[in-house]
Amino acid sequence: MEETTFAVLGTGGIGRRMLEVSRHKEGLTPVAACDRHGTTIDFDGLDVDELLAATEGNIDSEVATDGGAATADGEGVKQHGEDRGVVASEQARPSDDPIQDVIDHGEGIDAVLLALPNYEHDFIPRVADRFLEGGYAGVMVDVLKRSRVIGMLDDREGAFEEAGITFVCGAGATPGLLTGAAALAAQSFVEIESVEIRWGVGLESGYEDNRGTVREDIAHLPDYDIETARELSADEIEAIVDDHDGVIEFEDMEHADDVLLERAGVCDAEDVTVGGLLDVRSDEKPTTTTVTVTGTTFDGEQGTNTFQLDDATSMAANVNGPALGYLRAGVRRNRAGEYGVVGPAELMPRF
Amino acid sequence: MEETTFAVLGTGGIGRRMLEVSRHKEGLTPVAACDRHGTTIDFDGLDVDELLAATEGNIDSEVATDGGAATADGEGVKQHGEDRGVVASEQARPSDDPIQDVIDHGEGIDAVLLALPNYEHDFIPRVADRFLEGGYAGVMVDVLKRSRVIGMLDDREGAFEEAGITFVCGAGATPGLLTGAAALAAQSFVEIESVEIRWGVGLESGYEDNRGTVREDIAHLPDYDIETARELSADEIEAIVDDHDGVIEFEDMEHADDVLLERAGVCDAEDVTVGGLLDVRSDEKPTTTTVTVTGTTFDGEQGTNTFQLDDATSMAANVNGPALGYLRAGVRRNRAGEYGVVGPAELMPRF
Repeated sequence: MEETTFAVLGTGGIGRRMLEVSRHKEGLTPVAACDRHGTTIDFDGLDVDELLAATEGNIDSEVATDGGAATADGEGVKQHGEDRGVVASEQARPSDDPIQDVIDHGEGIDAVLLALPNYEHDFIPRVADRFLEGGYAGVMVDVLKRSRVIGMLDDREGAFEEAGITFVCGAGATPGLLTGAAALAAQSFVEIESVEIRWGVGLESGYEDNRGTVREDIAHLPDYDIETARELSADEIEAIVDDHDGVIEFEDMEHADDVLLERAGVCDAEDVTVGGLLDVRSDEKPTTTTVTVTGTTFDGEQGTNTFQLDDATSMAANVNGPALGYLRAGVRRNRAGEYGVVGPAELMPRF
Repeated sequence: MEETTFAVLGTGGIGRRMLEVSRHKEGLTPVAACDRHGTTIDFDGLDVDELLAATEGNIDSEVATDGGAATADGEGVKQHGEDRGVVASEQARPSDDPIQDVIDHGEGIDAVLLALPNYEHDFIPRVADRFLEGGYAGVMVDVLKRSRVIGMLDDREGAFEEAGITFVCGAGATPGLLTGAAALAAQSFVEIESVEIRWGVGLESGYEDNRGTVREDIAHLPDYDIETARELSADEIEAIVDDHDGVIEFEDMEHADDVLLERAGVCDAEDVTVGGLLDVRSDEKPTTTTVTVTGTTFDGEQGTNTFQLDDATSMAANVNGPALGYLRAGVRRNRAGEYGVVGPAELMPRF
């Protein structure tokens, strides 16, 4: 397979680590990165070391709006003199519309990784609209978790097909890695009874870098939704964390794992349950991330196959490797002329 | 993805179960099957029920030679009057060269599943040669395990590319399913230290149907090789089984898992070890089939991810589902114009 070039939209925790992990992958070249403050584009490949050093601590937890220019003061955004966010890198320049910069250079970009916050659940779909309007043809990848976003992307299926866009949704640890594992584990069976995905995340040292993720997780709690979670101040989030003694349990999450496994023909969405334990005060995982797939074999036996991630593997490690892998699988599909919306489990061998 | 048609060469244990499991898969139509005695071809789809009923117990453990007509008496081949093997089915007719029959109808066959014995380790490559000579363009899939066969297929890479053949090798439980799992489990890491594949098979009730597999496994024991194993009489095999009290342990097997994981860029072949326990006197697995992948994350942590198959899943269940899945993934590649030799882990998202 040929060389793959990619852009990262967003240089927060996820975006920066995507760049870092891509250095370990052969044939995968980051050529563009942006945040709300500016853009860096270099088709010879970005200088990832310089960019990471310059943007260290560049975690912008303010609520994003339309993917255009900054609309509010960023809390926690690193500043070098006048320069904010990615512009602190000497490769980057300020921009009034960083996303448009990337779209304008889309011809040399095989794939675009959306590492943007998603407090408004239509934010990613609206960014996709901008790429559609801008005439981009290629792969777009998000690492989202919420089922309803998939539906919004599905509404654009025809537009993606016409444009030549292959949109890979939910390509991170979950749904990404874990639905991939479920699709694989399902291969012993001709009938699936249940897929249970239970994750554990210990986030003490990564807490500062992942406040956006924690905010999104809070939106999954029974008393909250995306709208109320985005209204929360940092103090209110701290209060919620305190109320739970730092360990928040999630049951029956509205995670896209269910619809993505159904799309891939693995099982019915209603047979999938997702839950997890988040500990923001320890780096130890409060529970081992486990996928269990129970089904019946062709010869009538019931069994349960399991996939487990070691507690020593961070959420970051389990997001970034898979996302880049699915990105490449998406590029292969795109080059073969297969466009539209596709989930990670559909990129597995179609069992 | 469009409808996929496939042929099965060989109607022993593996071939018959492929047909059976394919009934549970949408969009996958068996259109041809053959053994050394005859052929059945129907582009409307075979009547699998009739074929399975007619060929029940149709396990031919004699040593195959050139894929052409029968050369020796088949022991254990079911006979209905004059008809032997697949010819016992009313859909089939006797043939002097069943493989040629399939090749002659190759235009309507997207993929050919090679469920043939492989006592001579160049048998599958020689069958591939026949498809090359016959001008077949499409997918060929084997469920072999031995590293050296991959090398022989690699020698034909140029010929496959010219012919438009995508050859998927080792698509069964192992290497197939388990190297796929290893490729997935490796995603948390940027550097892999070791992949350990340890399988357990309990084969009491399946022993009769899997004598070919047992013979092949014996060839992996320190005192045997493919040549000496094929010389063994049924009594000699029984004596070996007795010597081990029915449970044979295999260490450092010459399994293609290593070369196939290296091909897929997951790790070096030398970091892969394969071993297992075969119990022919119990259906209980003597050990749980487990894949453990140990590596280092991008953030410097060492961890081990694991994939386990429930003891209740039979070898047959773990061979046939994955093989049909990889077959479809192969067809997708083939339709995209990607030809040559490919291993199961390469059909996973290219992480």
